[in-house]
Amino acid sequence: MRPAAMTAGPSSSPYGVMNDRGAATNIVWHHSTVNRAARAHQRGHRSAILWFTGLSGSGKSTLANAVNSALFEQGMACYVLDGDNIRHGLCSDLGFSDADRVENIRRIGEVSKLFLDAGVVVLTAFVSPFRADRERARALVDAGDFIEIHCAAGLEVCEQRDTKGLYARARAGEIKDFTGISSPYEEPEAPELRVDTGATDLEACVAQVLSYLERQGVIPAAADA
Amino acid sequence: MRPAAMTAGPSSSPYGVMNDRGAATNIVWHHSTVNRAARAHQRGHRSAILWFTGLSGSGKSTLANAVNSALFEQGMACYVLDGDNIRHGLCSDLGFSDADRVENIRRIGEVSKLFLDAGVVVLTAFVSPFRADRERARALVDAGDFIEIHCAAGLEVCEQRDTKGLYARARAGEIKDFTGISSPYEEPEAPELRVDTGATDLEACVAQVLSYLERQGVIPAAADA
Repeated sequence: MRPAAMTAGPSSSPYGVMNDRGAATNIVWHHSTVNRAARAHQRGHRSAILWFTGLSGSGKSTLANAVNSALFEQGMACYVLDGDNIRHGLCSDLGFSDADRVENIRRIGEVSKLFLDAGVVVLTAFVSPFRADRERARALVDAGDFIEIHCAAGLEVCEQRDTKGLYARARAGEIKDFTGISSPYEEPEAPELRVDTGATDLEACVAQVLSYLERQGVIPAAADA
Repeated sequence: MRPAAMTAGPSSSPYGVMNDRGAATNIVWHHSTVNRAARAHQRGHRSAILWFTGLSGSGKSTLANAVNSALFEQGMACYVLDGDNIRHGLCSDLGFSDADRVENIRRIGEVSKLFLDAGVVVLTAFVSPFRADRERARALVDAGDFIEIHCAAGLEVCEQRDTKGLYARARAGEIKDFTGISSPYEEPEAPELRVDTGATDLEACVAQVLSYLERQGVIPAAADA
Protein backbone atom coordinates (compact mmCIF):
# COMPACT_ATOMS: atom_id res chain seq x y z
CA MET A 1 0.00 0.00 0.00
CA ARG A 2 1.29 3.40 -0.94
CA PRO A 3 1.87 5.89 1.87
CA ALA A 4 -0.49 8.81 2.12
CA ALA A 5 2.08 11.21 0.74
CA MET A 6 1.85 9.57 -2.66
CA THR A 7 -1.41 11.38 -3.26
CA ALA A 8 -0.61 14.61 -1.47
CA GLY A 9 -1.15 17.54 -3.80
CA PRO A 10 0.92 20.71 -4.07
CA SER A 11 -1.39 22.49 -1.66
CA SER A 12 -0.64 20.08 1.17
CA SER A 13 2.35 22.00 2.47
CA PRO A 14 4.82 19.29 1.59
CA TYR A 15 7.99 19.05 3.62
CA GLY A 16 8.40 22.59 4.76
CA VAL A 17 9.04 25.63 2.63
CA MET A 18 11.58 25.27 -0.11
CA ASN A 19 13.57 28.21 -1.38
CA ASP A 20 14.49 28.57 -5.03
CA ARG A 21 17.58 26.44 -4.61
CA GLY A 22 15.52 23.54 -3.35
CA ALA A 23 16.70 23.91 0.21
CA ALA A 24 14.23 24.00 3.03
CA THR A 25 14.18 27.34 4.78
CA ASN A 26 12.50 26.28 8.00
CA ILE A 27 15.21 23.97 9.28
CA VAL A 28 16.13 24.41 12.90
CA TRP A 29 19.29 22.35 12.50
CA HIS A 30 20.78 24.13 9.54
CA HIS A 31 22.09 26.93 11.70
CA SER A 32 25.06 24.68 12.33
CA THR A 33 27.07 24.13 9.20
CA VAL A 34 28.78 20.77 9.50
CA ASN A 35 32.01 21.08 7.61
CA ARG A 36 35.65 20.25 8.27
CA ALA A 37 36.27 23.44 10.19
CA ALA A 38 33.29 22.83 12.46
CA ARG A 39 34.35 19.24 13.06
CA ALA A 40 37.92 20.28 13.84
CA HIS A 41 36.65 22.91 16.25
CA GLN A 42 34.41 20.42 18.02
CA ARG A 43 37.01 17.68 18.27
CA GLY A 44 40.05 19.76 18.98
CA HIS A 45 42.13 18.42 16.11
CA ARG A 46 42.40 18.76 12.37
CA SER A 47 41.99 15.88 9.99
CA ALA A 48 44.71 14.71 7.63
CA ILE A 49 45.71 11.86 5.36
CA LEU A 50 48.78 10.01 6.62
CA TRP A 51 49.91 8.09 3.57
CA PHE A 52 52.38 5.39 4.63
CA THR A 53 54.38 3.96 1.74
CA GLY A 54 57.18 1.43 1.66
CA LEU A 55 58.19 -2.10 0.73
CA SER A 56 56.25 -5.13 1.86
CA GLY A 57 57.47 -5.86 5.38
CA SER A 58 58.71 -2.33 5.97
CA GLY A 59 56.29 -1.88 8.83
CA LYS A 60 53.68 0.40 7.26
CA SER A 61 50.71 -1.35 8.79
CA THR A 62 52.39 -1.87 12.17
CA LEU A 63 53.39 1.79 12.36
CA ALA A 64 50.02 3.05 11.08
CA ASN A 65 48.17 0.96 13.66
CA ALA A 66 50.47 2.07 16.47
CA VAL A 67 50.00 5.73 15.53
CA ASN A 68 46.27 5.11 15.26
CA SER A 69 46.22 3.65 18.77
CA ALA A 70 48.15 6.61 20.13
CA LEU A 71 45.74 9.07 18.49
CA PHE A 72 42.75 7.10 19.71
CA GLU A 73 44.06 7.15 23.27
CA GLN A 74 44.18 10.93 23.00
CA GLY A 75 40.51 10.88 22.04
CA MET A 76 40.97 11.68 18.38
CA ALA A 77 38.95 10.48 15.41
CA CYS A 78 41.24 8.24 13.37
CA TYR A 79 41.04 5.21 11.11
CA VAL A 80 43.43 2.88 9.30
CA LEU A 81 42.84 1.82 5.69
CA ASP A 82 44.89 -1.22 4.74
CA GLY A 83 44.75 -4.34 2.64
CA ASP A 84 42.51 -6.09 5.13
CA ASN A 85 39.61 -3.70 4.89
CA ILE A 86 40.10 -2.47 1.32
CA ARG A 87 41.15 -5.40 -0.81
CA HIS A 88 38.33 -7.62 0.47
CA GLY A 89 35.75 -4.88 0.24
CA LEU A 90 35.80 -1.76 -1.88
CA CYS A 91 38.48 -3.13 -4.20
CA SER A 92 37.48 -6.79 -4.22
CA ASP A 93 36.73 -6.46 -7.93
CA LEU A 94 40.32 -5.48 -8.72
CA GLY A 95 43.25 -7.72 -9.48
CA PHE A 96 46.92 -6.89 -9.83
CA SER A 97 47.21 -5.73 -13.42
CA ASP A 98 48.78 -2.33 -13.96
CA ALA A 99 45.38 -0.75 -14.57
CA ASP A 100 43.87 -2.39 -11.50
CA ARG A 101 46.74 -1.26 -9.29
CA VAL A 102 46.27 2.30 -10.46
CA GLU A 103 42.52 2.09 -9.82
CA ASN A 104 43.15 0.54 -6.40
CA ILE A 105 45.26 3.49 -5.30
CA ARG A 106 42.85 5.95 -6.93
CA ARG A 107 39.95 4.60 -4.86
CA ILE A 108 42.01 4.61 -1.68
CA GLY A 109 42.83 8.25 -2.36
CA GLU A 110 39.17 9.10 -2.90
CA VAL A 111 38.03 7.25 0.23
CA SER A 112 40.78 8.99 2.20
CA LYS A 113 39.44 12.30 0.97
CA LEU A 114 35.99 11.40 2.31
CA PHE A 115 37.44 10.57 5.74
CA LEU A 116 39.42 13.80 5.64
CA ASP A 117 36.21 15.70 4.95
CA ALA A 118 34.55 13.79 7.81
CA GLY A 119 37.16 15.14 10.21
CA VAL A 120 38.99 11.85 10.65
CA VAL A 121 42.76 11.41 10.63
CA VAL A 122 43.00 8.59 8.09
CA LEU A 123 46.11 6.44 7.90
CA THR A 124 46.67 4.43 4.71
CA ALA A 125 49.07 1.51 4.70
CA PHE A 126 49.73 0.31 1.16
CA VAL A 127 52.97 -0.36 -0.68
CA SER A 128 51.85 2.21 -3.30
CA PRO A 129 55.16 1.83 -5.13
CA PHE A 130 54.59 4.28 -7.95
CA ARG A 131 55.25 7.97 -7.55
CA ALA A 132 52.59 8.96 -10.08
CA ASP A 133 49.86 7.12 -8.17
CA ARG A 134 50.84 8.74 -4.88
CA GLU A 135 50.98 12.15 -6.52
CA ARG A 136 47.48 11.67 -7.88
CA ALA A 137 46.23 10.91 -4.37
CA ARG A 138 48.04 13.98 -3.07
CA ALA A 139 46.53 16.17 -5.78
CA LEU A 140 42.99 15.34 -4.63
CA VAL A 141 43.34 17.42 -1.49
CA ASP A 142 44.76 20.73 -0.36
CA ALA A 143 48.40 21.29 0.49
CA GLY A 144 49.05 20.20 4.06
CA ASP A 145 46.27 17.64 4.09
CA PHE A 146 48.35 14.88 2.52
CA ILE A 147 51.27 13.72 4.62
CA GLU A 148 53.44 11.18 2.86
CA ILE A 149 55.36 8.99 5.27
CA HIS A 150 58.08 6.84 3.79
CA CYS A 151 58.66 3.69 5.82
CA ALA A 152 62.23 3.42 4.72
CA ALA A 153 63.23 -0.08 5.81
CA GLY A 154 65.43 -1.36 3.01
CA LEU A 155 65.00 -4.43 0.88
CA GLU A 156 67.57 -6.46 2.84
CA VAL A 157 65.75 -5.88 6.12
CA CYS A 158 62.30 -6.51 4.65
CA GLU A 159 63.40 -9.66 2.87
CA GLN A 160 65.14 -10.94 5.96
CA ARG A 161 61.98 -10.39 8.02
CA ASP A 162 59.70 -11.80 5.30
CA THR A 163 56.91 -11.98 7.84
CA LYS A 164 54.40 -13.23 5.30
CA GLY A 165 56.78 -15.41 3.31
CA LEU A 166 56.09 -13.31 0.23
CA TYR A 167 59.71 -12.54 -0.63
CA ALA A 168 60.60 -16.24 -0.70
CA ARG A 169 57.69 -16.88 -3.01
CA ALA A 170 58.64 -13.93 -5.19
CA ARG A 171 62.25 -15.16 -5.42
CA ALA A 172 60.90 -18.59 -6.37
CA GLY A 173 58.93 -16.96 -9.14
CA GLU A 174 55.59 -17.85 -7.59
CA ILE A 175 54.56 -14.19 -7.35
CA LYS A 176 55.21 -12.02 -10.36
CA ASP A 177 55.66 -8.27 -10.34
CA PHE A 178 56.57 -8.27 -6.67
CA THR A 179 57.74 -4.87 -5.47
CA GLY A 180 61.46 -4.80 -4.76
CA ILE A 181 62.11 -8.12 -6.49
CA SER A 182 60.54 -8.04 -9.91
CA SER A 183 58.82 -4.67 -9.90
CA PRO A 184 60.28 -1.31 -8.90
CA TYR A 185 59.64 0.66 -5.74
CA GLU A 186 59.87 4.34 -6.52
CA GLU A 187 61.05 5.97 -3.33
CA PRO A 188 59.41 9.26 -2.42
CA GLU A 189 61.75 12.11 -3.32
CA ALA A 190 60.37 14.62 -0.85
CA PRO A 191 58.03 12.90 1.59
CA GLU A 192 56.76 14.96 4.48
CA LEU A 193 58.38 12.39 6.73
CA ARG A 194 60.88 9.57 6.35
CA VAL A 195 60.87 7.05 9.15
CA ASP A 196 63.70 4.57 9.44
CA THR A 197 61.53 1.56 10.15
CA GLY A 198 64.49 -0.69 9.39
CA ALA A 199 66.58 0.27 12.38
CA THR A 200 64.45 2.38 14.68
CA ASP A 201 62.37 1.12 17.57
CA LEU A 202 58.64 1.23 16.87
CA GLU A 203 57.98 3.48 19.83
CA ALA A 204 60.46 6.01 18.50
CA CYS A 205 58.90 5.80 15.03
CA VAL A 206 55.49 6.56 16.52
CA ALA A 207 56.91 9.49 18.44
CA GLN A 208 58.45 10.84 15.24
CA VAL A 209 55.07 10.80 13.48
CA LEU A 210 53.21 12.33 16.43
CA SER A 211 55.82 15.04 16.75
CA TYR A 212 55.39 15.92 13.08
CA LEU A 213 51.61 16.11 13.47
CA GLU A 214 52.03 18.40 16.46
CA ARG A 215 54.44 20.68 14.62
CA GLN A 216 52.00 20.92 11.71
CA GLY A 217 49.13 21.74 14.04
CA VAL A 218 47.14 18.64 13.08
CA ILE A 219 46.95 17.54 16.69
CA PRO A 220 47.47 19.62 19.81
CA ALA A 221 50.94 19.53 21.34
CA ALA A 222 51.24 16.87 24.02
CA ALA A 223 51.62 19.57 26.68
CA ASP A 224 48.21 20.96 25.71
CA ALA A 225 46.43 17.62 25.77
CA MET B 1 70.53 8.55 -1.89
CA ARG B 2 69.25 5.55 -0.03
CA PRO B 3 68.49 5.96 3.66
CA ALA B 4 70.81 4.24 6.11
CA ALA B 5 68.27 1.55 6.83
CA MET B 6 68.69 0.17 3.33
CA THR B 7 71.98 -1.36 4.36
CA ALA B 8 71.08 -2.31 7.91
CA GLY B 9 71.77 -5.99 8.48
CA PRO B 10 69.67 -8.46 10.41
CA SER B 11 71.79 -7.94 13.52
CA SER B 12 70.78 -4.28 13.77
CA SER B 13 67.73 -4.91 15.90
CA PRO B 14 65.32 -3.81 13.24
CA TYR B 15 62.07 -2.24 14.32
CA GLY B 16 61.49 -3.91 17.62
CA VAL B 17 60.80 -7.55 18.33
CA MET B 18 58.36 -9.27 16.03
CA ASN B 19 56.32 -12.25 17.15
CA ASP B 20 55.51 -15.13 14.82
CA ARG B 21 52.47 -13.33 13.45
CA GLY B 22 54.56 -10.42 12.34
CA ALA B 23 53.23 -8.13 15.04
CA ALA B 24 55.62 -6.16 17.19
CA THR B 25 55.54 -7.22 20.83
CA ASN B 26 57.09 -4.14 22.36
CA ILE B 27 54.38 -1.67 21.50
CA VAL B 28 53.26 0.54 24.31
CA TRP B 29 50.15 1.59 22.42
CA HIS B 30 48.83 -1.82 21.51
CA HIS B 31 47.31 -2.32 24.92
CA SER B 32 44.36 -0.39 23.57
CA THR B 33 42.56 -2.29 20.88
CA VAL B 34 40.94 0.21 18.57
CA ASN B 35 37.80 -1.43 17.29
CA ARG B 36 34.16 -0.46 16.93
CA ALA B 37 33.35 -1.33 20.52
CA ALA B 38 36.21 0.79 21.84
CA ARG B 39 35.21 3.71 19.64
CA ALA B 40 31.57 3.45 20.72
CA HIS B 41 32.63 3.34 24.35
CA GLN B 42 34.84 6.40 23.94
CA ARG B 43 32.30 8.45 22.01
CA GLY B 44 29.16 7.43 23.81
CA HIS B 45 27.28 6.28 20.74
CA ARG B 46 27.22 3.34 18.35
CA SER B 47 27.84 3.67 14.65
CA ALA B 48 25.28 2.74 12.02
CA ILE B 49 24.48 3.09 8.35
CA LEU B 50 21.39 5.22 7.72
CA TRP B 51 20.48 4.36 4.16
CA PHE B 52 18.03 6.95 2.82
CA THR B 53 16.23 5.85 -0.33
CA GLY B 54 13.49 7.49 -2.36
CA LEU B 55 12.64 9.27 -5.58
CA SER B 56 14.59 12.24 -6.84
CA GLY B 57 13.19 15.24 -4.97
CA SER B 58 11.81 13.16 -2.12
CA GLY B 59 14.05 14.96 0.34
CA LYS B 60 16.70 12.30 1.02
CA SER B 61 19.62 14.67 1.01
CA THR B 62 17.77 17.41 2.90
CA LEU B 63 16.68 14.97 5.58
CA ALA B 64 20.08 13.25 5.78
CA ASN B 65 21.83 16.58 6.20
CA ALA B 66 19.36 17.77 8.83
CA VAL B 67 19.78 14.53 10.80
CA ASN B 68 23.54 14.87 10.38
CA SER B 69 23.43 18.40 11.81
CA ALA B 70 21.36 17.25 14.75
CA LEU B 71 23.77 14.41 15.50
CA PHE B 72 26.74 16.73 15.13
CA GLU B 73 25.23 19.20 17.57
CA GLN B 74 25.03 16.38 20.08
CA GLY B 75 28.76 15.81 19.55
CA MET B 76 28.49 12.63 17.55
CA ALA B 77 30.69 11.40 14.74
CA CYS B 78 28.59 11.45 11.59
CA TYR B 79 28.97 11.97 7.86
CA VAL B 80 26.76 12.23 4.79
CA LEU B 81 27.57 10.43 1.56
CA ASP B 82 25.66 11.81 -1.39
CA GLY B 83 25.99 12.49 -5.07
CA ASP B 84 28.13 15.55 -4.47
CA ASN B 85 30.98 13.78 -2.75
CA ILE B 86 30.66 10.34 -4.40
CA ARG B 87 29.81 10.85 -8.05
CA HIS B 88 32.60 13.39 -8.58
CA GLY B 89 35.13 11.36 -6.62
CA LEU B 90 35.13 7.66 -5.89
CA CYS B 91 32.62 6.90 -8.63
CA SER B 92 33.72 9.46 -11.20
CA ASP B 93 34.67 6.58 -13.50
CA LEU B 94 31.11 5.26 -13.56
CA GLY B 95 28.29 6.22 -15.88
CA PHE B 96 24.62 5.32 -15.74
CA SER B 97 24.51 1.94 -17.43
CA ASP B 98 22.87 -0.86 -15.47
CA ALA B 99 26.25 -2.33 -14.55
CA ASP B 100 27.64 1.05 -13.50
CA ARG B 101 24.62 1.78 -11.33
CA VAL B 102 25.06 -1.54 -9.55
CA GLU B 103 28.77 -0.85 -9.06
CA ASN B 104 28.00 2.66 -7.81
CA ILE B 105 25.74 1.34 -5.06
CA ARG B 106 28.18 -1.48 -4.27
CA ARG B 107 30.99 1.00 -3.64
CA ILE B 108 28.75 3.22 -1.54
CA GLY B 109 27.88 0.17 0.54
CA GLU B 110 31.54 -0.72 0.99
CA VAL B 111 32.54 2.82 1.91
CA SER B 112 29.66 2.96 4.37
CA LYS B 113 30.98 -0.21 5.95
CA LEU B 114 34.36 1.47 6.44
CA PHE B 115 32.75 4.46 8.16
CA LEU B 116 30.69 2.07 10.28
CA ASP B 117 33.90 0.34 11.34
CA ALA B 118 35.44 3.75 12.06
CA GLY B 119 32.67 4.46 14.56
CA VAL B 120 30.90 7.02 12.41
CA VAL B 121 27.14 7.25 11.85
CA VAL B 122 27.11 7.39 8.07
CA LEU B 123 24.09 8.70 6.20
CA THR B 124 23.75 7.80 2.53
CA ALA B 125 21.42 9.78 0.29
CA PHE B 126 21.00 8.08 -3.07
CA VAL B 127 17.88 7.17 -5.03
CA SER B 128 19.08 3.53 -4.96
CA PRO B 129 15.89 2.42 -6.71
CA PHE B 130 16.55 -1.31 -6.88
CA ARG B 131 15.76 -3.61 -3.99
CA ALA B 132 18.53 -6.05 -4.89
CA ASP B 133 21.20 -3.34 -4.72
CA ARG B 134 20.01 -2.15 -1.32
CA GLU B 135 19.88 -5.71 -0.04
CA ARG B 136 23.46 -6.27 -1.13
CA ALA B 137 24.53 -3.20 0.85
CA ARG B 138 22.56 -4.46 3.84
CA ALA B 139 24.17 -7.89 3.60
CA LEU B 140 27.66 -6.41 4.01
CA VAL B 141 27.10 -5.64 7.67
CA ASP B 142 25.51 -7.17 10.75
CA ALA B 143 21.81 -7.03 11.53
CA GLY B 144 21.00 -3.73 13.20
CA ASP B 145 23.86 -1.86 11.55
CA PHE B 146 21.91 -1.11 8.37
CA ILE B 147 18.91 1.14 8.83
CA GLU B 148 16.91 1.61 5.65
CA ILE B 149 14.93 4.83 5.67
CA HIS B 150 12.35 5.23 2.94
CA CYS B 151 11.74 8.86 2.08
CA ALA B 152 8.24 8.17 0.90
CA ALA B 153 7.26 11.38 -0.89
CA GLY B 154 5.28 10.23 -3.89
CA LEU B 155 5.89 10.87 -7.54
CA GLU B 156 3.27 13.62 -7.77
CA VAL B 157 4.89 15.60 -4.98
CA CYS B 158 8.43 15.07 -6.25
CA GLU B 159 7.51 15.97 -9.81
CA GLN B 160 5.63 19.03 -8.65
CA ARG B 161 8.66 20.18 -6.65
CA ASP B 162 11.11 19.29 -9.44
CA THR B 163 13.77 21.29 -7.63
CA LYS B 164 16.45 20.40 -10.17
CA GLY B 165 14.23 20.44 -13.23
CA LEU B 166 15.03 16.80 -13.84
CA TYR B 167 11.44 15.58 -14.10
CA ALA B 168 10.66 18.08 -16.82
CA ARG B 169 13.72 16.95 -18.74
CA ALA B 170 12.82 13.30 -18.20
CA ARG B 171 9.26 13.92 -19.44
CA ALA B 172 10.74 15.67 -22.47
CA GLY B 173 12.83 12.59 -23.16
CA GLU B 174 16.11 14.41 -22.50
CA ILE B 175 17.02 12.04 -19.66
CA LYS B 176 16.46 8.36 -20.24
CA ASP B 177 15.92 5.73 -17.56
CA PHE B 178 14.83 8.34 -15.07
CA THR B 179 13.50 6.79 -11.87
CA GLY B 180 9.75 7.17 -11.53
CA ILE B 181 9.27 8.25 -15.16
CA SER B 182 11.04 5.78 -17.38
CA SER B 183 12.66 3.47 -14.87
CA PRO B 184 11.04 1.80 -11.86
CA TYR B 185 11.47 2.69 -8.21
CA GLU B 186 11.19 -0.45 -6.13
CA GLU B 187 9.78 0.69 -2.81
CA PRO B 188 11.30 -0.93 0.28
CA GLU B 189 8.94 -3.62 1.53
CA ALA B 190 10.10 -3.58 5.13
CA PRO B 191 12.36 -0.60 5.73
CA GLU B 192 13.42 0.06 9.29
CA LEU B 193 11.74 3.42 8.93
CA ARG B 194 9.34 5.06 6.50
CA VAL B 195 9.26 8.83 6.66
CA ASP B 196 6.49 10.70 4.94
CA THR B 197 8.69 13.37 3.42
CA GLY B 198 5.86 14.35 1.11
CA ALA B 199 3.56 15.76 3.76
CA THR B 200 5.48 15.97 7.01
CA ASP B 201 7.43 18.95 8.23
CA LEU B 202 11.20 18.45 8.05
CA GLU B 203 11.65 19.02 11.75
CA ALA B 204 9.16 16.24 12.48
CA CYS B 205 10.92 13.94 10.00
CA VAL B 206 14.23 14.53 11.78
CA ALA B 207 12.60 13.84 15.12
CA GLN B 208 11.23 10.57 13.77
CA VAL B 209 14.71 9.42 12.71
CA LEU B 210 16.36 10.49 15.96
CA SER B 211 13.66 8.76 17.97
CA TYR B 212 14.28 5.54 16.07
CA LEU B 213 18.03 5.79 16.69
CA GLU B 214 17.38 6.31 20.39
CA ARG B 215 15.03 3.33 20.61
CA GLN B 216 17.62 1.16 18.88
CA GLY B 217 20.33 2.32 21.25
CA VAL B 218 22.46 3.82 18.48
CA ILE B 219 22.47 7.19 20.22
CA PRO B 220 21.71 7.95 23.85
CA ALA B 221 18.17 9.00 24.68
CA ALA B 222 17.74 12.78 24.64
CA ALA B 223 17.13 12.76 28.38
CA ASP B 224 20.57 11.19 28.89
CA ALA B 225 22.41 13.63 26.65
